[in-house]
Amino acid sequence: MKKSLGADTLAYPLPLYLLGTYAPNGQPNIMALAWTGIVSSVPPTIMVGVMPSRLTHEGIVKNQAFTVNFPNSALAAKADYAGLVSGRQHDKFAELGLTPVESTLVKAPYVAECPVAAECRVISMAEVGDHTMFVGEILDIKAEEDLSGADGGLDVLKVDPVVFNYMGDYHRVGPSLGKSFSCGLVYKKK
Amino acid sequence: MKKSLGADTLAYPLPLYLLGTYAPNGQPNIMALAWTGIVSSVPPTIMVGVMPSRLTHEGIVKNQAFTVNFPNSALAAKADYAGLVSGRQHDKFAELGLTPVESTLVKAPYVAECPVAAECRVISMAEVGDHTMFVGEILDIKAEEDLSGADGGLDVLKVDPVVFNYMGDYHRVGPSLGKSFSCGLVYKKK
Repeated sequence: MKKSLGADTLAYPLPLYLLGTYAPNGQPNIMALAWTGIVSSVPPTIMVGVMPSRLTHEGIVKNQAFTVNFPNSALAAKADYAGLVSGRQHDKFAELGLTPVESTLVKAPYVAECPVAAECRVISMAEVGDHTMFVGEILDIKAEEDLSGADGGLDVLKVDPVVFNYMGDYHRVGPSLGKSFSCGLVYKKK
Repeated sequence: MKKSLGADTLAYPLPLYLLGTYAPNGQPNIMALAWTGIVSSVPPTIMVGVMPSRLTHEGIVKNQAFTVNFPNSALAAKADYAGLVSGRQHDKFAELGLTPVESTLVKAPYVAECPVAAECRVISMAEVGDHTMFVGEILDIKAEEDLSGADGGLDVLKVDPVVFNYMGDYHRVGPSLGKSFSCGLVYKKK
């Protein structure tokens, strides 16, 4: 029997990403990001929700670009810090010992230490509640060499990403539950 | 050193949800959903990307409502099946032994067996590439009684959600990496 918890953002699992931008003064900046998701497949697009008060917001609007970086479990606490302080007062790359790398296709830095990063150009923006919803087209994925999986994609356990839980702990990804687009075939009638 | 993988939807982690709707003929329907994410906090909103060809798309447009259901690991293969067949030919609730429950606030069914479900009313829709991006306001979260965590929220390990990996396996959530909005404080200069 379910109980009502009211209007809330209780979604499971949520991701922990780092959103990379150049601030209006040119400084590379990152913020922790959990309000995000893939929107479409062709072209590949991703939505990011950013509060208008954020320095990141100014950087996206100015450059019409951002990177989405996928920290691994070793970077969870650094990514958390990037959500606790503002780029207006802090050089977060420097304080965290992270390396901004100039993207090849958009005007936004990616994070060298993150295993995977997506270079995105803004294709739309809209006000949604207390956030701006930017939709970005993913123009390229940059990934470390040793992350390949069995099916031509990347192995999620090698990427080792972080699950966000907004009232609780970050978590690693755990054991396999079966193959996607396949394990459900057991329910198909012959 | 990173290599370029081209334009792709390689984001980590991604979720596996079930999107609940009434089809235009009134039949309760579900589909597997991974193109989704929270957009704003106040009000709480969530984006879902749905291909226009889907029966789910017709149901959302007609009723301006959907539910987002968070399957636990025991439901991963059932959720996978819900992404392999269409509600036009299959009564997926019946075939999977799942129970549609009428939402209290919107015209869309939620899945009784999922530990947590969000009742959403559509506040905007837009074409983005090959998908329609619906933004829904989360009007209520329905959750099982025994999922409470230490901080007033839900315990992600009790919810036991599924991580989606679009070229590979589904995974459970694994061990804790530290407290969100807190573990990053170790990087703060005194």
